[in-house]
Amino acid sequence: MNGQKNAICSPIGFRASGIACGLKKSGRLDLGLIYSIAPAIAYGMFTKNKFAAAPVIVTKKHLKARKAQAVIVNSGNANCFTGPKGLAVANLTTKAIAKLLGLKDNEVLVGSTGIIGKKLDFDKIRKALGSLINSLSEKNGHKFALSIMTTDTRPKELVVRFKIEGRTVTIGGTAKGAGMIAPDMATLLTFITTDAAIEYRALKRALGCAVNDSFNNITIDGCMSTNDSVVILANGLAKNRIITVGSKSFFAFSKALKEICLGLSKMIVRDAEGATKFITIKVSGALNNKQAKKAALQIANSDLFKTALYGQNPNMGRVVAAVGASGVKVKEGLLGVIYSPLKNKNVELCVDLKVGKGSTTVYTSDLTPEYIKINAEYN
Amino acid sequence: MNGQKNAICSPIGFRASGIACGLKKSGRLDLGLIYSIAPAIAYGMFTKNKFAAAPVIVTKKHLKARKAQAVIVNSGNANCFTGPKGLAVANLTTKAIAKLLGLKDNEVLVGSTGIIGKKLDFDKIRKALGSLINSLSEKNGHKFALSIMTTDTRPKELVVRFKIEGRTVTIGGTAKGAGMIAPDMATLLTFITTDAAIEYRALKRALGCAVNDSFNNITIDGCMSTNDSVVILANGLAKNRIITVGSKSFFAFSKALKEICLGLSKMIVRDAEGATKFITIKVSGALNNKQAKKAALQIANSDLFKTALYGQNPNMGRVVAAVGASGVKVKEGLLGVIYSPLKNKNVELCVDLKVGKGSTTVYTSDLTPEYIKINAEYN
Repeated sequence: MNGQKNAICSPIGFRASGIACGLKKSGRLDLGLIYSIAPAIAYGMFTKNKFAAAPVIVTKKHLKARKAQAVIVNSGNANCFTGPKGLAVANLTTKAIAKLLGLKDNEVLVGSTGIIGKKLDFDKIRKALGSLINSLSEKNGHKFALSIMTTDTRPKELVVRFKIEGRTVTIGGTAKGAGMIAPDMATLLTFITTDAAIEYRALKRALGCAVNDSFNNITIDGCMSTNDSVVILANGLAKNRIITVGSKSFFAFSKALKEICLGLSKMIVRDAEGATKFITIKVSGALNNKQAKKAALQIANSDLFKTALYGQNPNMGRVVAAVGASGVKVKEGLLGVIYSPLKNKNVELCVDLKVGKGSTTVYTSDLTPEYIKINAEYN
Repeated sequence: MNGQKNAICSPIGFRASGIACGLKKSGRLDLGLIYSIAPAIAYGMFTKNKFAAAPVIVTKKHLKARKAQAVIVNSGNANCFTGPKGLAVANLTTKAIAKLLGLKDNEVLVGSTGIIGKKLDFDKIRKALGSLINSLSEKNGHKFALSIMTTDTRPKELVVRFKIEGRTVTIGGTAKGAGMIAPDMATLLTFITTDAAIEYRALKRALGCAVNDSFNNITIDGCMSTNDSVVILANGLAKNRIITVGSKSFFAFSKALKEICLGLSKMIVRDAEGATKFITIKVSGALNNKQAKKAALQIANSDLFKTALYGQNPNMGRVVAAVGASGVKVKEGLLGVIYSPLKNKNVELCVDLKVGKGSTTVYTSDLTPEYIKINAEYN
């Protein structure tokens, strides 16, 4: 890992920008653009929320073509639950960017994050597009990272490099998540760029695995957002021999991509709203990995467990009750529960079910009065 | 409703007592007994937690005989995750009471509430049994209600009377729940007595319906306890014509029993730890009642919704996101969301999905810094 600032511009051929267009009352950066100078293979994974936001609907449609060259993202408004007008804004935004960059409409993807149910003012975006494109630069990845923040206290950027037959391949990623994976103000958005030459099928498989072991293994408050998106663009400019499923380079790429996703996931949990703890929950000895994950997430989503950790109280009963409530196979006499010292910022909980060989690791934060303050006052 | 104090002794032939045996450090009442002077038809419903507490295991076994005459309950210790020794304590307790009252072992049921994973001291209970039985009286129902409290700020008692062909039938109930339906300190326990003459099958069906529409429609923090129990004893001393499934009197009984269960449920939510709001969530227009309940509970269990209410913030997006996350059938253009004024203690949220005729009402509380304080400090 290195060069974390400007991460998404680290792979060859990527440009980015981030400006303020007035969507955030604070005047902070709220509009960002990623651009690849060459066509890129593209794939994305999205929220399963039934009220998926307009940008999610539009991006999913555009991704059917399996390629894209630009991603425009705004913060300050989620453009969700905004009806046909919201959909029109998302479409107009991609059309405008496509026209200015000389691309097809569906080669532009779109993302939004912020409050739900309020009209997204297209005029503010439209007026800013010229300046957004003019400031595209291979040095502005950090500004993009800043432009997608909401209640995040810091940007999240990460770069990983590895070699394929002597050629360096780079993956860069940036994420936002106000430390919570949650609706309406916090939403997880992740954008990943790479100069790897890779088949669509391999890209899809690698991202699926990486997300399953990272973004799907973190929870702050168990709330599912309407805007969650993870999007990757691979433009092939590293000129490596093309990565195909099952090849040696596929495993190297998958490993690097997982490092990006897991690293960004941990940054999100470390920036959790109001949190005083970074909690690692390791479950082993489950019937299988799926059951391990079910038990671990049930613990991680238990308000009682999270408040106990805030109180530095190594409460055994709340772990037992959560595991029992998860419905996975257990045997009372076998369950082992071990806490690391709770006075530290980093806390580890190891739970051994001793009924099989399934295991997992999930990450979460504690639940604090500050979390309530932030979320009670948010408008 | 009347005679709420001493509720469980209101039906003919029931005695109760409540004493302090030293399980609670505070010296408060912590051991209670209900006794019916005549054999009673008995039925119970219990937690689905895989680490069910020892008293739950023993009571379920005893209830296979479908009758019981006494229930002994302690607070201050859940006797859960206590292994074979905990099971032995639960068995020894019922055996001792059975011997003293001249009953068969399986005619005595047992309940516990308090901390999980700590040994329950049988000696303290054993030494107190004489005094517990000596103080049995038809006036001590209130003391029983006090003896099962943990972090409850007040006892919960309710009586409902109705007539069957001129004969008065009485149902009395008492519950504990520290305002939360949760593991290890708060656990829902409910004991219901009635002098109704009723068939086992009718009692089972009536309790199933009543619980589904009451205790299963409340949530404080979404945590499932290891000790949740609802037990009913029907001794027939009202001498009404026996109630059978589908008869006119069955509907009268079911209605009264639901009134008891719903009333106690609301008392539990009103006593929610740290809560400043009593929140009623009405979901209508769902595909069916099951989907309505799924959506309503998803809203009720959303920390973001609950913190918004604490902040008196009628946040629309958090309701939309929770409904969307629940996975029930929705149509974006149709969803209607209406809040009552949030400055009041009682708040109502009406959500109309407008896709069908399913509806439900659930009850919950807000999530506050005080809840975190209580649960962070609990040992």
